[in-house]
Amino acid sequence: MALKTGQEYIESLRQRNIKVFMFGERVENPVDHPIIRPSINAVAMTYELANQPEYEDLLTATSNLTGKRVNRFTHLHQSTEDLVKKVKMQRLLGQKTGVCFQRCVGMDAFNSIDSVTYEIDQKYGTEYHQRFRKFLAYIQENDLVVDGAMTDPKGDRSLPPSKQADPDLFLRIVEEREDGIVVRGAKVHQTGIVNSHEVLVMPTIAMREEDKDYAVSFAVPTDAKGLFFIYGRQSCDTRSLEEGDIDKGNAKFGGQEALTIFDNVFVPWERVFMCREYDFAGLLVERFAGYHRQSYGGCKVGVGDVLIGATAAVAQFNGVEKASHIKDKLVEMVHLNETLYSCGIACSAEGNRTASGTYLINLLLANVCKLNVTRFPYEIARLAQDIAGGLMVTLPSEKDFRHPELGKYVEKYLQGVAGIPTEDRLRLLRLIENMTLGRAAVGYLTESMHGAGSPQAMRVVIARQANMEKKKELAFELVGIEK
Amino acid sequence: MALKTGQEYIESLRQRNIKVFMFGERVENPVDHPIIRPSINAVAMTYELANQPEYEDLLTATSNLTGKRVNRFTHLHQSTEDLVKKVKMQRLLGQKTGVCFQRCVGMDAFNSIDSVTYEIDQKYGTEYHQRFRKFLAYIQENDLVVDGAMTDPKGDRSLPPSKQADPDLFLRIVEEREDGIVVRGAKVHQTGIVNSHEVLVMPTIAMREEDKDYAVSFAVPTDAKGLFFIYGRQSCDTRSLEEGDIDKGNAKFGGQEALTIFDNVFVPWERVFMCREYDFAGLLVERFAGYHRQSYGGCKVGVGDVLIGATAAVAQFNGVEKASHIKDKLVEMVHLNETLYSCGIACSAEGNRTASGTYLINLLLANVCKLNVTRFPYEIARLAQDIAGGLMVTLPSEKDFRHPELGKYVEKYLQGVAGIPTEDRLRLLRLIENMTLGRAAVGYLTESMHGAGSPQAMRVVIARQANMEKKKELAFELVGIEK
Amino acid sequence: MALKTGQEYIESLRQRNIKVFMFGERVENPVDHPIIRPSINAVAMTYELANQPEYEDLLTATSNLTGKRVNRFTHLHQSTEDLVKKVKMQRLLGQKTGVCFQRCVGMDAFNSIDSVTYEIDQKYGTEYHQRFRKFLAYIQENDLVVDGAMTDPKGDRSLPPSKQADPDLFLRIVEEREDGIVVRGAKVHQTGIVNSHEVLVMPTIAMREEDKDYAVSFAVPTDAKGLFFIYGRQSCDTRSLEEGDIDKGNAKFGGQEALTIFDNVFVPWERVFMCREYDFAGLLVERFAGYHRQSYGGCKVGVGDVLIGATAAVAQFNGVEKASHIKDKLVEMVHLNETLYSCGIACSAEGNRTASGTYLINLLLANVCKLNVTRFPYEIARLAQDIAGGLMVTLPSEKDFRHPELGKYVEKYLQGVAGIPTEDRLRLLRLIENMTLGRAAVGYLTESMHGAGSPQAMRVVIARQANMEKKKELAFELVGIEK
Amino acid sequence: MALKTGQEYIESLRQRNIKVFMFGERVENPVDHPIIRPSINAVAMTYELANQPEYEDLLTATSNLTGKRVNRFTHLHQSTEDLVKKVKMQRLLGQKTGVCFQRCVGMDAFNSIDSVTYEIDQKYGTEYHQRFRKFLAYIQENDLVVDGAMTDPKGDRSLPPSKQADPDLFLRIVEEREDGIVVRGAKVHQTGIVNSHEVLVMPTIAMREEDKDYAVSFAVPTDAKGLFFIYGRQSCDTRSLEEGDIDKGNAKFGGQEALTIFDNVFVPWERVFMCREYDFAGLLVERFAGYHRQSYGGCKVGVGDVLIGATAAVAQFNGVEKASHIKDKLVEMVHLNETLYSCGIACSAEGNRTASGTYLINLLLANVCKLNVTRFPYEIARLAQDIAGGLMVTLPSEKDFRHPELGKYVEKYLQGVAGIPTEDRLRLLRLIENMTLGRAAVGYLTESMHGAGSPQAMRVVIARQANMEKKKELAFELVGIEK
Repeated sequence: MALKTGQEYIESLRQRNIKVFMFGERVENPVDHPIIRPSINAVAMTYELANQPEYEDLLTATSNLTGKRVNRFTHLHQSTEDLVKKVKMQRLLGQKTGVCFQRCVGMDAFNSIDSVTYEIDQKYGTEYHQRFRKFLAYIQENDLVVDGAMTDPKGDRSLPPSKQADPDLFLRIVEEREDGIVVRGAKVHQTGIVNSHEVLVMPTIAMREEDKDYAVSFAVPTDAKGLFFIYGRQSCDTRSLEEGDIDKGNAKFGGQEALTIFDNVFVPWERVFMCREYDFAGLLVERFAGYHRQSYGGCKVGVGDVLIGATAAVAQFNGVEKASHIKDKLVEMVHLNETLYSCGIACSAEGNRTASGTYLINLLLANVCKLNVTRFPYEIARLAQDIAGGLMVTLPSEKDFRHPELGKYVEKYLQGVAGIPTEDRLRLLRLIENMTLGRAAVGYLTESMHGAGSPQAMRVVIARQANMEKKKELAFELVGIEK
Repeated sequence: MALKTGQEYIESLRQRNIKVFMFGERVENPVDHPIIRPSINAVAMTYELANQPEYEDLLTATSNLTGKRVNRFTHLHQSTEDLVKKVKMQRLLGQKTGVCFQRCVGMDAFNSIDSVTYEIDQKYGTEYHQRFRKFLAYIQENDLVVDGAMTDPKGDRSLPPSKQADPDLFLRIVEEREDGIVVRGAKVHQTGIVNSHEVLVMPTIAMREEDKDYAVSFAVPTDAKGLFFIYGRQSCDTRSLEEGDIDKGNAKFGGQEALTIFDNVFVPWERVFMCREYDFAGLLVERFAGYHRQSYGGCKVGVGDVLIGATAAVAQFNGVEKASHIKDKLVEMVHLNETLYSCGIACSAEGNRTASGTYLINLLLANVCKLNVTRFPYEIARLAQDIAGGLMVTLPSEKDFRHPELGKYVEKYLQGVAGIPTEDRLRLLRLIENMTLGRAAVGYLTESMHGAGSPQAMRVVIARQANMEKKKELAFELVGIEK
Repeated sequence: MALKTGQEYIESLRQRNIKVFMFGERVENPVDHPIIRPSINAVAMTYELANQPEYEDLLTATSNLTGKRVNRFTHLHQSTEDLVKKVKMQRLLGQKTGVCFQRCVGMDAFNSIDSVTYEIDQKYGTEYHQRFRKFLAYIQENDLVVDGAMTDPKGDRSLPPSKQADPDLFLRIVEEREDGIVVRGAKVHQTGIVNSHEVLVMPTIAMREEDKDYAVSFAVPTDAKGLFFIYGRQSCDTRSLEEGDIDKGNAKFGGQEALTIFDNVFVPWERVFMCREYDFAGLLVERFAGYHRQSYGGCKVGVGDVLIGATAAVAQFNGVEKASHIKDKLVEMVHLNETLYSCGIACSAEGNRTASGTYLINLLLANVCKLNVTRFPYEIARLAQDIAGGLMVTLPSEKDFRHPELGKYVEKYLQGVAGIPTEDRLRLLRLIENMTLGRAAVGYLTESMHGAGSPQAMRVVIARQANMEKKKELAFELVGIEK
Repeated sequence: MALKTGQEYIESLRQRNIKVFMFGERVENPVDHPIIRPSINAVAMTYELANQPEYEDLLTATSNLTGKRVNRFTHLHQSTEDLVKKVKMQRLLGQKTGVCFQRCVGMDAFNSIDSVTYEIDQKYGTEYHQRFRKFLAYIQENDLVVDGAMTDPKGDRSLPPSKQADPDLFLRIVEEREDGIVVRGAKVHQTGIVNSHEVLVMPTIAMREEDKDYAVSFAVPTDAKGLFFIYGRQSCDTRSLEEGDIDKGNAKFGGQEALTIFDNVFVPWERVFMCREYDFAGLLVERFAGYHRQSYGGCKVGVGDVLIGATAAVAQFNGVEKASHIKDKLVEMVHLNETLYSCGIACSAEGNRTASGTYLINLLLANVCKLNVTRFPYEIARLAQDIAGGLMVTLPSEKDFRHPELGKYVEKYLQGVAGIPTEDRLRLLRLIENMTLGRAAVGYLTESMHGAGSPQAMRVVIARQANMEKKKELAFELVGIEK
């Protein structure tokens, strides 16, 4: 059976021998580490929901490789309907976790590498596509989590890879052997990598011939020799180490990013999917980024639903839910959130078949989608803070609330509408803090800005895709200017 | 043959004996009136493109009533694909005319009345649906233009119809006869009505029992006895009376709105589609408004394409097209425009079948679409003015430019980049003036604000459709609050 | 006595023999031309209010040149209090006219030329300052209107003056004679020039040595030989030619811009204030632009007051003044308008004395002020259209309303709240149309964008004035980075 | 000598016997507590700068009560110049600390209570004003920090004080004795109270007769019997407990809020400044809020300067400082920040003398100022995150960086532009994290939203102060409508 349960997934992580460092120490048991575990729980939801009949249509698909039912996160999109379902699945998971559930980068890497390897093979007579599909069938069969790794450190951003002071600031091939290649470098802010079974690497920018050693794509297990991870800090990360569950805001779920270092890692040929075909690096980046920009039109919308719901509930607990300015702000939050969703749906519904048979989103609209994602969650968060009130950032700690003497005062003075437990009010305020300033804000805000590329990257694609000359002709036609 | 040519359409308008007034006088020949004709030309494009093979797929459809090929503007949407094509057709027409082409209100009225009459009949055993489909088959067969008339004058907006000082401030049934009904009242700012063969009337708000005489829907020819029109003024309307074509900005195309008065108009029963079923008035308004709010995600995007193209061309003629701030503003214009389009596509792709078989858009997303339309065209217009430069509002007249002596000075001093004719620059600047301050601004800006309902109307629907309780539960689930 | 009445001003205009062209014909009597007269009325208000005791403190000042009471529009600012009063005077005049009253460009030119000529003389031992002050004393004594003329046509904006295909695309010295200089070129969109007694010319950009013939400042009467004007078209300009006063929106007042051509105009030396001192061209532009960007923090705010008032009144006439969303939008309009005012006040209160003794505004804040002016009036106008409703652009004409038969229908169906005359409602809607799409929109919107420089010009100054290195040091200090 | 040094201030705090609780335990030594100390350091800067000659003019003033030089934070504003200097002092302190320095609430309470007590005495013949000035002279003489305490818990916000389920949800007089009064209740999110010598209490809303027991103003020392504090949690508060200084972002400075409980506190009559004069409660709230809304036009601007500087420096370290989109965003940040400053200056320059002689800001403009503060810092923070890049939220910990082995990898792979130490880059990124998500974000964002009142509170005042009837008259005058 290709579908694991959430528990099976978690257990499978224990089998790996991965090297993770946090706060200057190696983490011996990442699976049960209180900072890491919430992020594992979020990934586990991609398994749990796949086993629930009501979500089967969204969470699973019939593999075009094997004909079996597989988790949609491992599926190659075979239609625009698949593209639309992807977005709906992501919204659902955002709603169920309130955080980044991390498994999208792999899915987006699969789909982009699939069509690009096909096109490389067409041009160069290579066999990357067949290698890749074999790899993917293995992933589907074992229902694995794969981190799609793109972003290099980049050093001085005004210089290309081969001109950096340190040649390793972009990941590169340092040796070619009979049985494979050896790579060195790093990938920064890798989402969910510590919770992944495999890492699937791609180049991060378009390249020219002098950068060809940097044009490389491959997969290795996350416990491959030479590979290790330094865990990234998040705002309020250490609250996950504290007792109690109120102050954590979202005690069960969290996101994860890590600095990933490839310190001379060997990759056998059957796991190499691009090797110096530098003229395809830009295309791969564009497609992966396109898929991932679509993704944000799903996941962030689901997270937005949670934030809107929490805010509406706080308004109710404060006794102001009927105030017209409160209702108006809630409508604005919904409006912005659904605008993002509309963009996610539209770039999917307007997708197209690539040569490999895998479907690609509409690139212009996917970039428009993500550019809105760099704006609206910030405004939704601002409105959430407006409605929630200042208490969100001045609340006493859970320990004060639990204290036999002090607790009575907290209970008494932080009571909202009569009849609603003060504790419920505290819990919601802490959730809003978590989502707008704390651990989840990293995913909902900063990652909305930079994940899948920073705003300027979208603007460049939009400029290229806008067909401005066609638009000029429309105007010339109307005023009678001959071209 | 069900498809007329543009010319046939124009000729067919001459057959009517309609009563139109403008500037205090009756217009004897509306078809050739220089202020009216541009608006007729815009409607005629809905015929012309339907006869061009390259646009056949968008502009025509196979009627579910007759099985014949009909103009899509007269079609009942049979699938979400039909809904998507509607939006694409509207974008195309916006691109080809740069103005409101007026035929959408009829299309949106057909589709909403179709499903609502079906549901009225289900409840009350009436026969409205069959009557309506017979009427529509006639429209399709003859490829007619129908004005969908909803907006009543409304008088004191804080009062319902039956409480107004003058009972006629909402259109109402004043007499019921054996062979039909007599109605009195008015519909304000009726788009394209003078260019229509028929008018299809709907109520304008949800109603209660005391307002039941106002719950009426019917169709009459635009030259029915008792029906007359007072032409609405538009900004710069009289430029259409001037010689020359530069100062008009868009000399060939324009929009149209008129105050439409029903001064005791008789309607035979076979043309009556709702008669006092007040409990369905709100539903009809909601559906018509929904379809029409979707429409704006198509037509205004097409008009936006023209404005963006004109602006990019002016930048080129001014020698600043490569300046980074200019490029950035053009990208922003495209981004906003494509966000509107995404909303138009999304509410279509997410549509659903109604009981009558006709497809309805996703109401939440259609309202989100239109709410964005009340904002982004204004910002696009502002950016167009930014890039175009102040010359747009200080240009000498075409007569100065054509003058044998003065013209040389205008030519000399208003030259932009060498090699581009000064006249081309003037033409584009006048087009931008037309679209941001002149005749077309009425449609691109103010109508974007109020057409299909003012912003607050969308907010009310969004609030209702948002399912806030479900969102609260998502938050409760995450923080462990029991309902 | 140095103060003219409004009527004396108007009569004084008749004495000039100026050459104005409009619609390809010479205007024999500009003072009584129905398109021009509203703009003259607006200027006349700067005289009328100066004669009213309640406004004396704002509209007049004691000349530092003569010790006499003069119109503040001819005054050199002697303190920050003078700078603040300037802004308040401008707001008042915006409130009283609802349009651009045109006399500020001269005032801003006086103040900038005063300090710059002083500094040129300091460097080069020239006598421009004394010449200029003599000229200004004459202006004060006779209470004249002076157009400050800066903007050249500029042709290809990517090229400097001396590199243009046509050397006249920037105004330049074509001959130097014993008694003066001869200049050729044009100044575009000259505000109020046809209503001015004199024109005071300045260069339009910073210059290098090769452009030194373009570095010229001087004054000539508007009826100087070789000088002529081609009147600029405004949106809805010809409504001023129609009968009646409703459709004009603001029948009494209007703005004015004209293409101004210097066709070999002779200037005697005593009227020359800069002659090839190219290294001071940029400084003069910066100061003039700075003063004029301050001005917009006054005049546009006053115009905004009128628009807000008209909108609030229409809301009242529609019966919706108490609706919370209406109140909220009105508050937003006020908020944006007062933010502009705050910027106008702040750059004045933070002004400084220049070497000549004349006070200069704070340049950073004046540019911030104007950058906001390129945004907020558009949003205020959008909100005005939101509240006013679509009727604003679909109203029948005044002739329909005055028609003995039709008028009854217009009266009946366009009635708002009972008791308010329909005519009053029409008048206000036409005023809002005038201010957001018509004649006054040219001043309130497009001129807010481009007058005193387009947005990018402000951004360049803000970047230069921001002292970013100081800000970096603040951050370095906090985190302990040694410079 | 009336001016303490920073060190003397800190030592003086040790003399108090105050009861502070944090994480369920009493804090024995608040002065040296690592979470509290940064907030004390911020207050201490108000002392240190007052002793530096270059800041003497801003940080000190001559007392109108004693004629001595006092810290401006204890001064009654005697002129609009004083009001302007207040704003400049606040900007300076924001620049020097990057956080909320907490001493403004006391200053704003002094000034509002001063004029209001004068007016109460005028009406009721009471002696509050004299009592208050005596109290203030003592504060000035001893250069003390006073917390101005306004915000009550409020419970169900739809109910007035006397209608709450628990009567203590607003602070109230529970007993009146010969020698004074006894009060009970709480004040939430009290800024800097643990660092204060005294607390000066005011009512939080306008009241009616039935609420008169809640209309009370008084001062007590922070170690008064019955008074205690529960420390509020901030995002990332426990980073202050960690070793090292990088991850703290701003290791030296921080803000502070605490839940303050008055558990039957006795106040002697000479410290009571309002006692049941409920008709003055609203006036006091309005004035205090007005002053405090002005304050935000200074302090938040100074903090913004730091954030802008940090962002510009990161851009430089990333090698992108010259990219046009980066420059453009930095200009936008400056523009928004200086708009806030303009509002702070304008409401000060337009201030007026009250009956007591103390100067009051312009209330309309102060509310406009604060309403902008609820918006622009969020956008500035968003732009800071845009420019800073995603690394800000995925950086390894300082311990990883200091680790002998791991540190080399962090050093190598997080290098930016060659030549800039990686550590400097980390420090700046952590500062931006601190200001947009961490401890300082509480002050820069959420407090900007709610401090001195939430946005709706400003909108209510703006509506009241806007003089809408005057604006309507301006419109009526222009279109010829008789009132």
